[in-house]
Amino acid sequence: MTPTITAFRQSPDQGRGQARDMRVRWALEEVNQPYDVRLVSFREMKEPPHLSIQPFGQIPTYEEGGLQLFESGAIVLHIAERHPGLLPRDLAARARAIAWMFAAVNTVEPTLVEIEAARLLEQDKSWYAQRLPLLEERARRRLDSLARRLGDSEWLDGSFSAGDLMMIGVLFRTRGLGLLEIYPNLRAYVSHGENRPAFGRAFAAQRAVFMANQQG
Amino acid sequence: MTPTITAFRQSPDQGRGQARDMRVRWALEEVNQPYDVRLVSFREMKEPPHLSIQPFGQIPTYEEGGLQLFESGAIVLHIAERHPGLLPRDLAARARAIAWMFAAVNTVEPTLVEIEAARLLEQDKSWYAQRLPLLEERARRRLDSLARRLGDSEWLDGSFSAGDLMMIGVLFRTRGLGLLEIYPNLRAYVSHGENRPAFGRAFAAQRAVFMANQQG
Repeated sequence: MTPTITAFRQSPDQGRGQARDMRVRWALEEVNQPYDVRLVSFREMKEPPHLSIQPFGQIPTYEEGGLQLFESGAIVLHIAERHPGLLPRDLAARARAIAWMFAAVNTVEPTLVEIEAARLLEQDKSWYAQRLPLLEERARRRLDSLARRLGDSEWLDGSFSAGDLMMIGVLFRTRGLGLLEIYPNLRAYVSHGENRPAFGRAFAAQRAVFMANQQG
Repeated sequence: MTPTITAFRQSPDQGRGQARDMRVRWALEEVNQPYDVRLVSFREMKEPPHLSIQPFGQIPTYEEGGLQLFESGAIVLHIAERHPGLLPRDLAARARAIAWMFAAVNTVEPTLVEIEAARLLEQDKSWYAQRLPLLEERARRRLDSLARRLGDSEWLDGSFSAGDLMMIGVLFRTRGLGLLEIYPNLRAYVSHGENRPAFGRAFAAQRAVFMANQQG
């Protein structure tokens, strides 16, 4: 059964791989699971058919037979549980990899989304310039912690896992924000992710959507 | 093996059950798993012994034999996987419950944390009064979606699950923000959670820490 995921018809990041479908594509590529993509417009995302799968009107979603899932973290975990390669077999190591998945979306990502939201929604406000450094400081506090824990390791906890996939997927959102510049080890960490063939295939696939849209 | 969790020595919410240890206590109570609590001060949270368990210097953590975990979502999921009662047996329903756990911490909680952060860190700024309505609107967009999906149901997807536990744990943070007033069904949903005996025991336990500290 080939799963179907959803992605933006018009990617707000112009094919830079920063939308959340990238993580799901990457996970599917890591386990060599072919998938179909249904593109949705911003209007369609807020209409009943999509809302019945994704109550918050976002992407990505995941459909496989009768199963309908949302939330990139939950989808990646589902894929990781069904296929070998993304979660350690040892139960303690498996639980720790899942902890990193939650840390990526609950502890690191929100500080980056706040910066993106300010840039997108508050750039015309009188407070924007004064407030941005406060937001960057909050994000850096998380990145400091992450960089300290990672140290010189290639991955966060032993072998590459869904925890790294989610964390690198989140850090990838910082592209263009200049936040990682002072963390050589976090930059190397993201590069290790980008250098994985599965990442490359996933990136090319989401990029192709943007390019096709440009030409259409 | 009795697990040990960590919680604030001085609870910033004064025992109102809004710190993230509440979710873990609640999950442990739901499955009737006794646990020990190690209280940590704000200073201790940022020191190496605690950082070795929680890289971001937060609570809660979870220790059980050789396993050390962090992130409330990961800890609750670990508990739910080890004990019956918090995740459906049906695989699709189980995956959906986990999707709600991620939705709670990745899609709903950040909008509430932003409001808390503004109240805590930006109340003295010139922009505070003008910006607060923008933040409340962002949070309401999520709450609108959640209220629409919940409808008149008691729980989000069939029986009570770890998804409800996490979502109610997150919504419980809105206490005092006045955000839920316009959503009778979300208020009822939170009440259904609060009325569970396990919630009551967890709430009393964290409240007792605050009371003991008051007297100490």
